[in-house]
Amino acid sequence: MPSSSSMASASPAECRQAIRRGEWTRHTSGLAAGYAQANLVILPAQYADDFMRFCLMNPKPCPLLDVTRPGDPVPHGLGEGIDLRHDLPRYRLYRHGALDGECTDIAELWQDDFVGFSIGCSFSFEEALINDGLDVRHVTHDRNVPMYRTNRALTPSGVFRGELVVSMRPFPAAQAIRAIQLTTDMPRVHGAPIHLGHPELLGIENLAAPDFGEPPVLHDDDLPVFWACGVTPQLAIEQAKLPLVITHSPGHMLITDLPNQQLKFG
Amino acid sequence: MPSSSSMASASPAECRQAIRRGEWTRHTSGLAAGYAQANLVILPAQYADDFMRFCLMNPKPCPLLDVTRPGDPVPHGLGEGIDLRHDLPRYRLYRHGALDGECTDIAELWQDDFVGFSIGCSFSFEEALINDGLDVRHVTHDRNVPMYRTNRALTPSGVFRGELVVSMRPFPAAQAIRAIQLTTDMPRVHGAPIHLGHPELLGIENLAAPDFGEPPVLHDDDLPVFWACGVTPQLAIEQAKLPLVITHSPGHMLITDLPNQQLKFG
Repeated sequence: MPSSSSMASASPAECRQAIRRGEWTRHTSGLAAGYAQANLVILPAQYADDFMRFCLMNPKPCPLLDVTRPGDPVPHGLGEGIDLRHDLPRYRLYRHGALDGECTDIAELWQDDFVGFSIGCSFSFEEALINDGLDVRHVTHDRNVPMYRTNRALTPSGVFRGELVVSMRPFPAAQAIRAIQLTTDMPRVHGAPIHLGHPELLGIENLAAPDFGEPPVLHDDDLPVFWACGVTPQLAIEQAKLPLVITHSPGHMLITDLPNQQLKFG
Repeated sequence: MPSSSSMASASPAECRQAIRRGEWTRHTSGLAAGYAQANLVILPAQYADDFMRFCLMNPKPCPLLDVTRPGDPVPHGLGEGIDLRHDLPRYRLYRHGALDGECTDIAELWQDDFVGFSIGCSFSFEEALINDGLDVRHVTHDRNVPMYRTNRALTPSGVFRGELVVSMRPFPAAQAIRAIQLTTDMPRVHGAPIHLGHPELLGIENLAAPDFGEPPVLHDDDLPVFWACGVTPQLAIEQAKLPLVITHSPGHMLITDLPNQQLKFG
Protein backbone atom coordinates (compact mmCIF):
# COMPACT_ATOMS: atom_id res chain seq x y z
CA MET A 1 0.00 0.00 0.00
CA PRO A 2 1.34 3.49 -0.81
CA SER A 3 2.19 5.68 2.21
CA SER A 4 -0.19 8.39 3.41
CA SER A 5 2.38 11.06 2.65
CA SER A 6 2.94 9.82 -0.91
CA MET A 7 -0.85 9.78 -1.45
CA ALA A 8 -1.15 13.29 0.03
CA SER A 9 1.22 14.70 -2.57
CA ALA A 10 -0.06 12.51 -5.43
CA SER A 11 -2.34 13.90 -8.14
CA PRO A 12 -6.05 13.08 -8.04
CA ALA A 13 -5.58 10.71 -11.03
CA GLU A 14 -2.68 8.92 -9.30
CA CYS A 15 -4.76 8.50 -6.13
CA ARG A 16 -7.73 7.13 -8.09
CA GLN A 17 -5.47 4.69 -9.93
CA ALA A 18 -4.05 3.35 -6.66
CA ILE A 19 -7.63 3.00 -5.40
CA ARG A 20 -8.79 1.33 -8.64
CA ARG A 21 -5.95 -1.19 -8.44
CA GLY A 22 -7.05 -2.02 -4.90
CA GLU A 23 -3.83 -0.70 -3.35
CA TRP A 24 -5.61 1.89 -1.20
CA THR A 25 -8.78 0.98 0.70
CA ARG A 26 -8.50 3.40 3.64
CA HIS A 27 -10.19 6.78 4.14
CA THR A 28 -9.27 9.62 1.79
CA SER A 29 -8.84 12.52 4.25
CA GLY A 30 -5.70 14.43 3.26
CA LEU A 31 -5.19 12.61 -0.06
CA ALA A 32 -4.41 14.62 -3.23
CA ALA A 33 -4.10 17.77 -1.16
CA GLY A 34 -5.73 20.82 -2.74
CA TYR A 35 -8.39 18.91 -4.68
CA ALA A 36 -12.08 18.52 -3.91
CA GLN A 37 -13.52 15.24 -2.69
CA ALA A 38 -17.17 14.31 -3.03
CA ASN A 39 -19.91 12.35 -1.32
CA LEU A 40 -21.43 9.76 -3.66
CA VAL A 41 -25.02 8.51 -3.94
CA ILE A 42 -25.96 6.00 -6.64
CA LEU A 43 -29.60 5.05 -7.14
CA PRO A 44 -31.86 3.73 -9.93
CA ALA A 45 -33.16 6.22 -12.52
CA GLN A 46 -36.77 5.86 -11.35
CA TYR A 47 -35.82 7.67 -8.12
CA ALA A 48 -33.23 10.02 -9.63
CA ASP A 49 -35.62 12.78 -10.57
CA ASP A 50 -37.02 13.12 -7.04
CA PHE A 51 -33.57 12.89 -5.50
CA MET A 52 -32.18 15.56 -7.83
CA ARG A 53 -35.09 17.83 -6.85
CA PHE A 54 -34.45 17.01 -3.17
CA CYS A 55 -30.84 18.18 -3.56
CA LEU A 56 -31.87 21.35 -5.41
CA MET A 57 -34.44 22.23 -2.76
CA ASN A 58 -31.95 21.59 0.05
CA PRO A 59 -28.75 23.00 -1.44
CA LYS A 60 -26.87 23.63 1.80
CA PRO A 61 -26.74 19.97 2.94
CA CYS A 62 -26.81 18.60 -0.64
CA PRO A 63 -24.73 20.83 -2.97
CA LEU A 64 -24.65 18.94 -6.28
CA LEU A 65 -21.30 18.86 -8.07
CA ASP A 66 -22.26 16.35 -10.76
CA VAL A 67 -25.11 14.08 -11.85
CA THR A 68 -24.45 11.29 -14.36
CA ARG A 69 -26.76 10.14 -17.14
CA PRO A 70 -28.59 6.86 -16.42
CA GLY A 71 -26.19 3.95 -16.86
CA ASP A 72 -23.10 6.11 -17.40
CA PRO A 73 -20.50 5.50 -14.64
CA VAL A 74 -18.44 8.56 -15.69
CA PRO A 75 -19.02 11.88 -13.85
CA HIS A 76 -17.94 14.10 -16.74
CA GLY A 77 -18.05 17.30 -14.70
CA LEU A 78 -15.44 16.18 -12.19
CA GLY A 79 -12.36 15.30 -14.23
CA GLU A 80 -10.82 12.95 -16.77
CA GLY A 81 -11.19 9.19 -16.75
CA ILE A 82 -13.13 8.84 -13.51
CA ASP A 83 -15.23 5.67 -13.14
CA LEU A 84 -17.71 5.53 -10.26
CA ARG A 85 -17.61 1.70 -10.33
CA HIS A 86 -13.97 1.45 -9.23
CA ASP A 87 -12.59 4.78 -8.05
CA LEU A 88 -13.75 4.99 -4.43
CA PRO A 89 -11.84 3.01 -1.80
CA ARG A 90 -14.96 1.76 -0.05
CA TYR A 91 -18.66 1.69 -0.88
CA ARG A 92 -21.75 0.99 1.20
CA LEU A 93 -24.78 -0.95 0.02
CA TYR A 94 -28.22 -0.16 1.37
CA ARG A 95 -31.14 -2.47 0.69
CA HIS A 96 -34.61 -1.31 1.77
CA GLY A 97 -32.99 1.34 3.99
CA ALA A 98 -30.72 -1.05 5.88
CA LEU A 99 -26.94 -1.25 5.54
CA ASP A 100 -26.17 -4.49 3.70
CA GLY A 101 -22.38 -4.55 3.61
CA GLU A 102 -19.41 -2.71 2.21
CA CYS A 103 -17.15 -3.38 -0.76
CA THR A 104 -14.22 -1.83 -2.60
CA ASP A 105 -15.55 -2.10 -6.17
CA ILE A 106 -19.11 -2.11 -7.51
CA ALA A 107 -18.58 -3.20 -11.13
CA GLU A 108 -20.53 -6.42 -10.54
CA LEU A 109 -23.43 -4.51 -8.95
CA TRP A 110 -23.65 -1.84 -11.64
CA GLN A 111 -27.04 -1.50 -13.36
CA ASP A 112 -27.77 0.23 -16.66
CA ASP A 113 -30.29 2.48 -14.90
CA PHE A 114 -27.91 3.73 -12.18
CA VAL A 115 -27.51 7.50 -11.72
CA GLY A 116 -24.54 8.82 -9.71
CA PHE A 117 -24.85 12.00 -7.64
CA SER A 118 -21.62 13.67 -6.49
CA ILE A 119 -22.20 16.05 -3.59
CA GLY A 120 -19.75 18.62 -2.20
CA CYS A 121 -17.85 17.73 0.95
CA SER A 122 -16.61 19.76 3.90
CA PHE A 123 -13.02 18.56 3.38
CA SER A 124 -12.73 21.41 0.84
CA PHE A 125 -13.71 24.19 3.21
CA GLU A 126 -11.72 22.73 6.10
CA GLU A 127 -8.61 22.98 3.94
CA ALA A 128 -9.45 26.64 3.25
CA LEU A 129 -9.90 27.33 6.99
CA ILE A 130 -6.62 25.61 7.91
CA ASN A 131 -4.74 27.40 5.12
CA ASP A 132 -6.08 30.66 6.57
CA GLY A 133 -4.57 29.82 9.96
CA LEU A 134 -7.73 28.73 11.80
CA ASP A 135 -7.63 26.01 14.44
CA VAL A 136 -9.99 23.36 13.05
CA ARG A 137 -10.19 21.57 16.36
CA HIS A 138 -11.08 18.01 15.33
CA VAL A 139 -8.28 18.04 12.75
CA THR A 140 -5.83 19.40 15.33
CA HIS A 141 -6.84 16.54 17.67
CA ASP A 142 -7.02 13.92 14.89
CA ARG A 143 -10.69 13.13 15.56
CA ASN A 144 -13.72 12.77 13.35
CA VAL A 145 -15.91 15.90 13.24
CA PRO A 146 -18.94 15.81 15.61
CA MET A 147 -22.30 15.66 13.81
CA TYR A 148 -25.82 16.13 15.22
CA ARG A 149 -29.40 15.54 14.16
CA THR A 150 -31.45 18.78 14.33
CA ASN A 151 -35.14 19.74 14.47
CA ARG A 152 -34.95 21.54 11.12
CA ALA A 153 -37.19 19.86 8.54
CA LEU A 154 -35.88 19.52 4.99
CA THR A 155 -37.98 20.38 1.96
CA PRO A 156 -39.33 16.95 0.93
CA SER A 157 -39.30 15.58 -2.62
CA GLY A 158 -41.05 12.33 -3.41
CA VAL A 159 -39.87 9.65 -0.99
CA PHE A 160 -36.96 11.81 0.22
CA ARG A 161 -37.48 13.76 3.44
CA GLY A 162 -36.09 14.15 6.94
CA GLU A 163 -34.29 16.59 9.17
CA LEU A 164 -31.08 18.51 8.64
CA VAL A 165 -27.88 17.03 10.07
CA VAL A 166 -25.14 19.49 11.01
CA SER A 167 -21.42 19.24 11.66
CA MET A 168 -19.98 21.42 14.42
CA ARG A 169 -16.62 23.14 14.64
CA PRO A 170 -15.87 25.26 17.73
CA PHE A 171 -14.03 28.57 17.34
CA PRO A 172 -13.30 31.65 19.43
CA ALA A 173 -15.42 34.57 18.17
CA ALA A 174 -12.89 36.21 15.86
CA GLN A 175 -12.13 32.86 14.19
CA ALA A 176 -15.86 32.10 13.97
CA ILE A 177 -16.35 35.34 12.05
CA ARG A 178 -13.44 34.51 9.76
CA ALA A 179 -14.84 31.00 9.19
CA ILE A 180 -18.18 32.53 8.16
CA GLN A 181 -16.43 34.82 5.69
CA LEU A 182 -14.36 32.04 4.14
CA THR A 183 -17.18 29.48 3.81
CA THR A 184 -19.63 32.07 2.46
CA ASP A 185 -17.49 32.02 -0.67
CA MET A 186 -17.81 28.23 -1.05
CA PRO A 187 -21.52 27.50 -1.64
CA ARG A 188 -20.73 24.28 -3.57
CA VAL A 189 -19.27 22.68 -0.42
CA HIS A 190 -22.06 23.58 2.06
CA GLY A 191 -21.32 27.34 2.14
CA ALA A 192 -21.76 29.51 5.23
CA PRO A 193 -22.79 28.01 8.58
CA ILE A 194 -26.52 27.68 9.26
CA HIS A 195 -26.27 28.51 12.99
CA LEU A 196 -23.86 29.45 15.75
CA GLY A 197 -24.19 29.68 19.51
CA HIS A 198 -27.03 28.03 21.45
CA PRO A 199 -27.27 24.39 20.29
CA GLU A 200 -30.74 24.01 21.88
CA LEU A 201 -32.20 26.29 19.19
CA LEU A 202 -31.43 23.48 16.74
CA GLY A 203 -32.87 20.87 19.11
CA ILE A 204 -29.40 19.65 20.13
CA GLU A 205 -29.48 18.77 23.83
CA ASN A 206 -25.90 17.78 24.53
CA LEU A 207 -22.93 18.91 22.46
CA ALA A 208 -20.75 16.31 24.18
CA ALA A 209 -22.87 13.48 22.75
CA PRO A 210 -22.93 13.83 18.96
CA ASP A 211 -25.15 11.52 16.90
CA PHE A 212 -22.27 10.76 14.49
CA GLY A 213 -18.50 11.25 14.59
CA GLU A 214 -16.59 11.91 17.80
CA PRO A 215 -17.20 14.29 20.77
CA PRO A 216 -15.86 17.82 20.32
CA VAL A 217 -12.87 19.34 22.11
CA LEU A 218 -14.28 22.61 23.49
CA HIS A 219 -12.27 25.49 24.95
CA ASP A 220 -13.53 28.31 27.18
CA ASP A 221 -14.84 31.19 25.05
CA ASP A 222 -15.51 28.88 22.09
CA LEU A 223 -18.68 29.40 20.10
CA PRO A 224 -20.07 26.26 18.48
CA VAL A 225 -20.49 26.89 14.73
CA PHE A 226 -22.84 24.61 12.78
CA TRP A 227 -22.66 23.75 9.08
CA ALA A 228 -25.15 21.75 6.99
CA CYS A 229 -23.66 18.27 6.66
CA GLY A 230 -23.39 15.70 3.87
CA VAL A 231 -24.75 13.00 6.20
CA THR A 232 -28.16 14.65 5.65
CA PRO A 233 -28.81 13.03 2.23
CA GLN A 234 -27.56 9.68 3.52
CA LEU A 235 -30.22 9.67 6.27
CA ALA A 236 -32.89 10.78 3.81
CA ILE A 237 -31.93 7.81 1.63
CA GLU A 238 -32.11 5.37 4.52
CA GLN A 239 -35.58 6.68 5.44
CA ALA A 240 -36.73 6.28 1.83
CA LYS A 241 -36.09 2.50 2.05
CA LEU A 242 -35.30 2.07 -1.64
CA PRO A 243 -34.58 -1.49 -2.87
CA LEU A 244 -30.91 -0.66 -3.56
CA VAL A 245 -28.73 2.39 -3.04
CA ILE A 246 -24.93 2.56 -3.12
CA THR A 247 -23.01 5.33 -1.36
CA HIS A 248 -19.40 6.02 -0.39
CA SER A 249 -18.43 4.65 3.01
CA PRO A 250 -18.04 7.59 5.43
CA GLY A 251 -14.67 9.27 4.92
CA HIS A 252 -13.95 7.14 1.82
CA MET A 253 -14.76 9.78 -0.76
CA LEU A 254 -14.47 10.30 -4.50
CA ILE A 255 -11.29 12.29 -5.26
CA THR A 256 -12.01 14.73 -8.10
CA ASP A 257 -9.83 16.80 -10.41
CA LEU A 258 -11.50 20.04 -9.20
CA PRO A 259 -9.07 22.28 -7.31
CA ASN A 260 -10.62 23.41 -4.00
CA GLN A 261 -9.77 26.94 -5.07
CA GLN A 262 -12.12 26.54 -8.04
CA LEU A 263 -15.07 25.84 -5.72
CA LYS A 264 -14.92 29.40 -4.43
CA PHE A 265 -17.71 31.79 -5.34
CA GLY A 266 -20.23 29.23 -6.58
CA MET B 1 -54.86 48.47 -15.72
CA PRO B 2 -52.97 49.40 -12.54
CA SER B 3 -50.28 52.08 -12.92
CA SER B 4 -46.59 51.14 -13.18
CA SER B 5 -45.86 53.03 -9.97
CA SER B 6 -48.61 51.23 -8.03
CA MET B 7 -47.30 47.89 -9.32
CA ALA B 8 -43.71 48.88 -8.40
CA SER B 9 -44.70 49.38 -4.77
CA ALA B 10 -47.15 46.44 -4.67
CA SER B 11 -46.25 43.16 -2.97
CA PRO B 12 -45.33 40.16 -5.13
CA ALA B 13 -48.70 38.55 -4.29
CA GLU B 14 -50.60 41.70 -5.28
CA CYS B 15 -48.72 41.87 -8.57
CA ARG B 16 -49.41 38.19 -9.32
CA GLN B 17 -53.11 38.66 -8.56
CA ALA B 18 -53.36 41.61 -10.95
CA ILE B 19 -51.61 39.45 -13.56
CA ARG B 20 -53.84 36.43 -12.85
CA ARG B 21 -56.97 38.59 -13.24
CA GLY B 22 -55.66 39.69 -16.63
CA GLU B 23 -55.27 43.32 -15.51
CA TRP B 24 -51.52 43.42 -16.22
CA THR B 25 -50.10 41.94 -19.41
CA ARG B 26 -47.01 44.16 -19.88
CA HIS B 27 -43.39 43.44 -18.95
CA THR B 28 -42.52 43.06 -15.27
CA SER B 29 -39.31 45.14 -15.03
CA GLY B 30 -39.53 47.27 -11.88
CA LEU B 31 -42.62 45.51 -10.48
CA ALA B 32 -42.70 44.46 -6.79
CA ALA B 33 -39.41 46.26 -6.20
CA GLY B 34 -36.98 44.32 -4.02
CA TYR B 35 -38.24 40.85 -4.97
CA ALA B 36 -36.66 38.33 -7.33
CA GLN B 37 -38.18 37.57 -10.71
CA ALA B 38 -37.54 34.36 -12.60
CA ASN B 39 -37.22 32.98 -16.11
CA LEU B 40 -39.67 30.12 -16.71
CA VAL B 41 -39.28 26.96 -18.79
CA ILE B 42 -42.06 24.35 -18.85
CA LEU B 43 -41.53 21.06 -20.64
CA PRO B 44 -42.82 17.47 -20.49
CA ALA B 45 -41.40 15.15 -17.82
CA GLN B 46 -39.68 12.91 -20.37
CA TYR B 47 -37.22 15.75 -21.10
CA ALA B 48 -37.10 17.18 -17.57
CA ASP B 49 -34.30 14.99 -16.35
CA ASP B 50 -31.92 15.98 -19.14
CA PHE B 51 -32.89 19.63 -18.84
CA MET B 52 -32.33 19.64 -15.08
CA ARG B 53 -28.89 18.10 -15.65
CA PHE B 54 -28.22 20.70 -18.37
CA CYS B 55 -28.97 23.47 -15.86
CA LEU B 56 -26.80 21.87 -13.16
CA MET B 57 -23.87 21.48 -15.55
CA ASN B 58 -24.21 25.08 -16.77
CA PRO B 59 -25.07 26.89 -13.54
CA LYS B 60 -23.95 30.38 -14.56
CA PRO B 61 -26.44 30.80 -17.44
CA CYS B 62 -29.05 28.47 -15.85
CA PRO B 63 -29.14 28.97 -12.05
CA LEU B 64 -32.10 26.90 -10.88
CA LEU B 65 -34.34 28.52 -8.26
CA ASP B 66 -37.11 25.90 -8.32
CA VAL B 67 -38.21 22.75 -10.15
CA THR B 68 -41.80 21.51 -9.81
CA ARG B 69 -42.93 17.91 -9.58
CA PRO B 70 -44.48 16.56 -12.81
CA GLY B 71 -48.02 17.91 -13.19
CA ASP B 72 -47.80 20.28 -10.21
CA PRO B 73 -48.18 23.92 -11.33
CA VAL B 74 -47.05 25.26 -7.92
CA PRO B 75 -43.37 26.21 -7.47
CA HIS B 76 -43.29 25.60 -3.72
CA GLY B 77 -39.80 27.04 -3.26
CA LEU B 78 -40.72 30.51 -4.53
CA GLY B 79 -43.60 31.67 -2.32
CA GLU B 80 -47.19 31.14 -1.31
CA GLY B 81 -50.05 30.48 -3.70
CA ILE B 82 -48.11 30.83 -6.95
CA ASP B 83 -49.61 29.04 -9.98
CA LEU B 84 -47.47 28.76 -13.10
CA ARG B 85 -50.61 28.40 -15.26
CA HIS B 86 -51.84 31.95 -14.59
CA ASP B 87 -49.24 34.09 -12.85
CA LEU B 88 -47.03 35.32 -15.69
CA PRO B 89 -48.27 38.20 -17.85
CA ARG B 90 -47.22 36.61 -21.12
CA TYR B 91 -46.07 33.15 -22.18
CA ARG B 92 -44.44 31.86 -25.34
CA LEU B 93 -45.25 28.53 -26.98
CA TYR B 94 -42.59 26.66 -28.92
CA ARG B 95 -43.51 23.67 -31.09
CA HIS B 96 -40.65 21.66 -32.64
CA GLY B 97 -38.28 24.53 -31.89
CA ALA B 98 -40.33 27.24 -33.60
CA LEU B 99 -42.21 30.06 -31.86
CA ASP B 100 -45.91 29.24 -32.19
CA GLY B 101 -47.59 32.21 -30.55
CA GLU B 102 -47.96 33.96 -27.20
CA CYS B 103 -50.72 33.92 -24.62
CA THR B 104 -51.50 35.34 -21.18
CA ASP B 105 -52.71 32.13 -19.47
CA ILE B 106 -51.79 28.50 -20.09
CA ALA B 107 -54.44 26.67 -18.05
CA GLU B 108 -55.94 25.13 -21.18
CA LEU B 109 -52.53 23.95 -22.37
CA TRP B 110 -51.45 22.45 -19.07
CA GLN B 111 -50.50 18.75 -19.14
CA ASP B 112 -50.23 16.39 -16.20
CA ASP B 113 -46.61 15.65 -17.15
CA PHE B 114 -45.43 19.29 -17.25
CA VAL B 115 -42.41 20.26 -15.16
CA GLY B 116 -41.72 23.95 -14.48
CA PHE B 117 -38.17 25.25 -14.13
CA SER B 118 -37.69 28.68 -12.55
CA ILE B 119 -34.28 30.16 -13.36
CA GLY B 120 -32.66 33.19 -11.72
CA CYS B 121 -32.81 36.51 -13.59
CA SER B 122 -30.42 39.46 -13.86
CA PHE B 123 -33.11 41.91 -12.66
CA SER B 124 -32.04 40.91 -9.13
CA PHE B 125 -28.38 41.80 -9.51
CA GLU B 126 -29.14 44.96 -11.49
CA GLU B 127 -31.17 46.19 -8.53
CA ALA B 128 -28.18 45.46 -6.26
CA LEU B 129 -25.83 47.38 -8.59
CA ILE B 130 -28.17 50.38 -8.82
CA ASN B 131 -28.73 50.42 -5.05
CA ASP B 132 -24.95 50.52 -4.67
CA GLY B 133 -24.78 53.64 -6.83
CA LEU B 134 -23.55 52.09 -10.09
CA ASP B 135 -24.62 53.48 -13.45
CA VAL B 136 -26.37 50.52 -15.09
CA ARG B 137 -26.27 52.12 -18.49
CA HIS B 138 -29.21 50.46 -20.28
CA VAL B 139 -31.46 51.18 -17.30
CA THR B 140 -30.28 54.80 -17.20
CA HIS B 141 -31.14 55.08 -20.91
CA ASP B 142 -34.35 53.03 -20.66
CA ARG B 143 -33.16 50.43 -23.17
CA ASN B 144 -33.14 46.65 -23.18
CA VAL B 145 -29.78 45.14 -22.20
CA PRO B 146 -27.55 44.11 -25.18
CA MET B 147 -27.04 40.34 -25.47
CA TYR B 148 -24.59 38.42 -27.66
CA ARG B 149 -24.02 34.86 -28.84
CA THR B 150 -20.51 33.65 -27.93
CA ASN B 151 -18.15 30.88 -29.04
CA ARG B 152 -18.22 29.22 -25.61
CA ALA B 153 -19.75 25.74 -25.81
CA LEU B 154 -22.10 24.65 -23.04
CA THR B 155 -21.83 21.25 -21.38
CA PRO B 156 -24.46 19.23 -23.28
CA SER B 157 -27.10 17.01 -21.66
CA GLY B 158 -29.31 14.81 -23.80
CA VAL B 159 -30.89 16.93 -26.54
CA PHE B 160 -29.86 20.19 -24.83
CA ARG B 161 -26.69 21.87 -26.08
CA GLY B 162 -25.45 25.08 -27.65
CA GLU B 163 -23.29 28.10 -26.94
CA LEU B 164 -23.32 30.55 -24.06
CA VAL B 165 -25.24 33.80 -24.53
CA VAL B 166 -24.00 36.80 -22.53
CA SER B 167 -25.48 40.12 -21.52
CA MET B 168 -23.14 43.13 -21.49
CA ARG B 169 -23.08 46.13 -19.16
CA PRO B 170 -20.36 48.76 -19.71
CA PHE B 171 -18.66 50.32 -16.67
CA PRO B 172 -15.60 52.44 -15.94
CA ALA B 173 -12.92 50.29 -14.28
CA ALA B 174 -13.68 51.12 -10.64
CA GLN B 175 -17.38 50.40 -11.16
CA ALA B 176 -16.53 47.21 -13.07
CA ILE B 177 -14.56 46.00 -10.06
CA ARG B 178 -17.43 46.89 -7.73
CA ALA B 179 -19.89 45.09 -10.04
CA ILE B 180 -17.71 41.97 -9.87
CA GLN B 181 -17.69 42.13 -6.09
CA LEU B 182 -21.45 42.59 -5.79
CA THR B 183 -22.46 39.89 -8.29
CA THR B 184 -19.96 37.39 -6.89
CA ASP B 185 -22.25 37.24 -3.86
CA MET B 186 -25.30 36.38 -6.00
CA PRO B 187 -24.57 32.99 -7.63
CA ARG B 188 -28.31 32.16 -7.88
CA VAL B 189 -28.85 35.03 -10.34
CA HIS B 190 -25.88 34.36 -12.70
CA GLY B 191 -23.17 35.38 -10.21
CA ALA B 192 -19.91 37.06 -11.21
CA PRO B 193 -19.22 38.07 -14.82
CA ILE B 194 -17.63 35.47 -17.10
CA HIS B 195 -15.47 37.96 -19.01
CA LEU B 196 -14.53 41.62 -19.31
CA GLY B 197 -12.60 43.61 -21.88
CA HIS B 198 -11.88 42.32 -25.39
CA PRO B 199 -15.18 41.09 -26.88
CA GLU B 200 -13.37 39.19 -29.67
CA LEU B 201 -12.09 36.67 -27.12
CA LEU B 202 -15.72 35.55 -26.77
CA GLY B 203 -16.18 35.54 -30.55
CA ILE B 204 -18.16 38.82 -30.48
CA GLU B 205 -17.21 40.85 -33.56
CA ASN B 206 -19.19 44.05 -33.08
CA LEU B 207 -20.45 45.30 -29.71
CA ALA B 208 -22.70 47.81 -31.48
CA ALA B 209 -24.69 44.98 -33.10
CA PRO B 210 -26.01 42.71 -30.34
CA ASP B 211 -27.83 39.51 -31.27
CA PHE B 212 -30.68 40.29 -28.84
CA GLY B 213 -31.81 43.42 -26.98
CA GLU B 214 -30.70 46.91 -27.96
CA PRO B 215 -27.26 48.40 -28.84
CA PRO B 216 -25.20 49.57 -25.87
CA VAL B 217 -24.46 53.16 -24.89
CA LEU B 218 -20.65 53.18 -24.50
CA HIS B 219 -18.57 55.94 -22.90
CA ASP B 220 -14.84 56.53 -23.28
CA ASP B 221 -12.91 54.53 -20.68
CA ASP B 222 -15.74 52.00 -20.33
CA LEU B 223 -14.87 48.34 -20.05
CA PRO B 224 -17.49 45.94 -21.42
CA VAL B 225 -18.42 43.46 -18.68
CA PHE B 226 -20.11 40.19 -19.72
CA TRP B 227 -22.47 38.05 -17.64
CA ALA B 228 -23.94 34.64 -18.46
CA CYS B 229 -27.49 35.29 -19.65
CA GLY B 230 -30.87 33.60 -19.16
CA VAL B 231 -31.45 33.62 -22.92
CA THR B 232 -28.94 30.74 -23.06
CA PRO B 233 -31.43 28.03 -21.96
CA GLN B 234 -34.08 29.46 -24.29
CA LEU B 235 -31.78 28.97 -27.31
CA ALA B 236 -30.85 25.48 -26.13
CA ILE B 237 -34.56 24.65 -25.98
CA GLU B 238 -35.20 25.97 -29.48
CA GLN B 239 -32.30 23.88 -30.82
CA ALA B 240 -33.69 20.78 -29.09
CA LYS B 241 -36.89 21.03 -31.20
CA LEU B 242 -39.17 19.43 -28.61
CA PRO B 243 -42.82 18.92 -29.57
CA LEU B 244 -43.99 21.53 -27.01
CA VAL B 245 -42.23 23.91 -24.62
CA ILE B 246 -43.72 26.91 -22.83
CA THR B 247 -41.56 29.78 -21.57
CA HIS B 248 -42.10 33.29 -20.27
CA SER B 249 -42.13 35.95 -22.98
CA PRO B 250 -38.89 38.00 -22.72
CA GLY B 251 -39.20 40.57 -19.93
CA HIS B 252 -42.52 39.08 -18.76
CA MET B 253 -41.18 37.18 -15.79
CA LEU B 254 -42.49 35.23 -12.81
CA ILE B 255 -42.56 37.53 -9.75
CA THR B 256 -41.53 35.51 -6.68
CA ASP B 257 -41.78 36.10 -2.93
CA LEU B 258 -37.98 35.79 -2.57
CA PRO B 259 -36.39 39.08 -1.49
CA ASN B 260 -33.42 39.91 -3.75
CA GLN B 261 -31.42 40.31 -0.57
CA GLN B 262 -32.04 36.63 0.21
CA LEU B 263 -30.36 35.58 -3.04
CA LYS B 264 -27.03 36.80 -1.75
CA PHE B 265 -24.34 34.27 -0.91
CA GLY B 266 -25.90 31.27 -2.68
